[in-house]
Amino acid sequence: MTIQIPRGTQDILPGVVEKWQFIEGKAKEICNKYQYREIRTPIFENTELFLRGVGDTTDIVQKEMYSFHDRGGRNITLRPEGTASVVRSFAENKMFGNPTQPVKLYYLGPMFRYERPQAGRYRQFVQFGVEALGSMDPAIDAEVISLAMDLYKSLGLKKLRLVINSLGDNESRNAHRTALINHFEPRIDEFCGDCQKRLEKNPLRILDCKKDRDHELMKSAPSILEFLNEDSKQYFEKVKQYLSEMDIDFIVDPTLVRGLDYYNHTAFEIMSEAEGFGAITTLCGGGRYNGLVEEMGGPDTPGIGFALSMERLISALEAEGINIDSKYAADCYIIALGDEARDYSVSLLQKLRQAGFSSDRDYLNRKLKAQFKAAERLGAKFAIILGDEELQTGKITVKNLDNGEQSVMSLHNFIDEFSKQCR
Amino acid sequence: MTIQIPRGTQDILPGVVEKWQFIEGKAKEICNKYQYREIRTPIFENTELFLRGVGDTTDIVQKEMYSFHDRGGRNITLRPEGTASVVRSFAENKMFGNPTQPVKLYYLGPMFRYERPQAGRYRQFVQFGVEALGSMDPAIDAEVISLAMDLYKSLGLKKLRLVINSLGDNESRNAHRTALINHFEPRIDEFCGDCQKRLEKNPLRILDCKKDRDHELMKSAPSILEFLNEDSKQYFEKVKQYLSEMDIDFIVDPTLVRGLDYYNHTAFEIMSEAEGFGAITTLCGGGRYNGLVEEMGGPDTPGIGFALSMERLISALEAEGINIDSKYAADCYIIALGDEARDYSVSLLQKLRQAGFSSDRDYLNRKLKAQFKAAERLGAKFAIILGDEELQTGKITVKNLDNGEQSVMSLHNFIDEFSKQCR
Repeated sequence: MTIQIPRGTQDILPGVVEKWQFIEGKAKEICNKYQYREIRTPIFENTELFLRGVGDTTDIVQKEMYSFHDRGGRNITLRPEGTASVVRSFAENKMFGNPTQPVKLYYLGPMFRYERPQAGRYRQFVQFGVEALGSMDPAIDAEVISLAMDLYKSLGLKKLRLVINSLGDNESRNAHRTALINHFEPRIDEFCGDCQKRLEKNPLRILDCKKDRDHELMKSAPSILEFLNEDSKQYFEKVKQYLSEMDIDFIVDPTLVRGLDYYNHTAFEIMSEAEGFGAITTLCGGGRYNGLVEEMGGPDTPGIGFALSMERLISALEAEGINIDSKYAADCYIIALGDEARDYSVSLLQKLRQAGFSSDRDYLNRKLKAQFKAAERLGAKFAIILGDEELQTGKITVKNLDNGEQSVMSLHNFIDEFSKQCR
Repeated sequence: MTIQIPRGTQDILPGVVEKWQFIEGKAKEICNKYQYREIRTPIFENTELFLRGVGDTTDIVQKEMYSFHDRGGRNITLRPEGTASVVRSFAENKMFGNPTQPVKLYYLGPMFRYERPQAGRYRQFVQFGVEALGSMDPAIDAEVISLAMDLYKSLGLKKLRLVINSLGDNESRNAHRTALINHFEPRIDEFCGDCQKRLEKNPLRILDCKKDRDHELMKSAPSILEFLNEDSKQYFEKVKQYLSEMDIDFIVDPTLVRGLDYYNHTAFEIMSEAEGFGAITTLCGGGRYNGLVEEMGGPDTPGIGFALSMERLISALEAEGINIDSKYAADCYIIALGDEARDYSVSLLQKLRQAGFSSDRDYLNRKLKAQFKAAERLGAKFAIILGDEELQTGKITVKNLDNGEQSVMSLHNFIDEFSKQCR
């Protein structure tokens, strides 16, 4: 009986994996240009981390985490997102004391959420994200946004919409919070159970509710932008100014509040506007989280970052009809006939590889024609043909499969002669 | 309060992560030369997969798996090794029907075993492995071994020992099994409880027991090599012949049986002989597993592969005193003084990056000297110096930090002029 892959997960196979490799290569190249360096944190963390770092009123923590007890009775959770782990590592490894500040990090790896699988949504999915810790310069907010946009644009995406907002500092948020409670409280019984709970705990997140989105009080809800104090207003103005100077188009949307509890000041999302992209159009989300390092036991440190889904990035490329070449061609394929020639080809193959040629041979004892077919399938540029007779006369035939030209070389000196011809 | 990383796991931080990137790059480069292509399978699988694919008498399955129930009540397990998942994927995705045969795959990613953490042993560790499915040519056994050796050698490792053995085909294994039972049965009560259980289930694994390794019956136990039938003997001879022709040194050790249940014919391990490497000297282990694809619900298909631990590879490099350069230098650092110059530097920085320069600027409003210090720390080759006055006169100063040379360029045309100078 066949055992199947777990529901909501996928295998990434040769033919498709090359797309992933290409996109990941781009992401790393851009991080290098922006001077962000990689960090790798474990796949699972102590559950407590996400209760504190993601926020215990969020859907992620309440409904979607893969939490379990290990054999030592510890409560651990497969990471549902990357920021909490990076901030944990920043605090635990005392990176706030690093000579280079701010600390600019990126990560790339699988995340896990127990959601209903649907098109483009998996229970294991891959996120690429960056975090910049230690600076309260609005230019770094613009840098983080620019990095995400650069990745999308470098892959050829055009139909993008960047939406930004400011959630303000604590003073501004508190003033807005009071206004929101006053706004919703009189008619809160018309809202869903989740929203009724949110009214006290985090009324901002009512604005994010999918069930109540059409309620008339939603549209008339007080906007955070009206409650920004002078500092928060100035900060937001600078971020917008920098984005404009960098020629990055954006839309300000005061209802953008993001799903996580810990954001303040800048929040942003990048959406795909490609036709037929589907219901979930958000490609990337991020924002500033100035209290999170302290929450994790480190000193008060500002931070900003984003995360984007690789699966959605790939869907967006498909929706815009952008094809990433996933060819994977060999340089040489050895075609050997006869027992002695086949034996000899083993060490010949090794020498070709050691000389830097991506090479292969037949491992199924196939006939001449089938071996040529195999060479073609690998996209090999050269067939290197060897029979028992050639072996005795010390000759080897090289056929250029692109143009059909053949040449005979000395077996004795083959690697040198062949390398020269290829150069 | 600080939240800590889970016991037995580690963060890989900037400064160290570059070593990993380099080694992974080498592994991918070598796989490309050998025409092995990447496969990515999920981090967790249905638990049943490992019961069948690793073997339910192994320590891994009995003591070390991270198994739990997801929110839908499914029994899932964090993968403790890579082969079972790759073979599951091979069968499920019907790769036995691919036009290119054999199917040659590699994987690189985290694995999970609940073991007692110690030096060089983690509960989450990274394995690189390859699997070649569909060929029963002894040359592919030699190829797989050669690929592992190539990776180690390309990184500069010299103190390596390759040990090989043959476990034979089913007929040979059964004859050996009977001989082993006859050998151990009369005095099995002198052995540990685990070995007593193994006598019936899998007596071969008694030879692998750490507790009973010094018992006199161990040394006198019948060797598998005496029970190889003609086919198995010939197969093993060919593998040895090919390794010799490839100039790969090896030792035959008839007690090498490997920890997993599913091996037959070729088994091998690569050890570090570096002084002070520690108790666990095995860097890499692999072997042939004809029968596993069928066990997973696919057609009868031969297979061979290996897995190696990245953590142990890195320890071996350290033990041999091989240093992998983990420098990460920037091209440019913008030093901006004054509000206008700082503002201007945001878009200038973006233009530098878009022109391909790995660049950064100050995000902490530091003074001139501290900005120069920051540029040095990043290893920047050029400091690009801009003050409010320069901004008004349309000039910008470039300082080569390697040799101290300074030049003044026009701000208007800066990216072009600077690019030309760098080329």
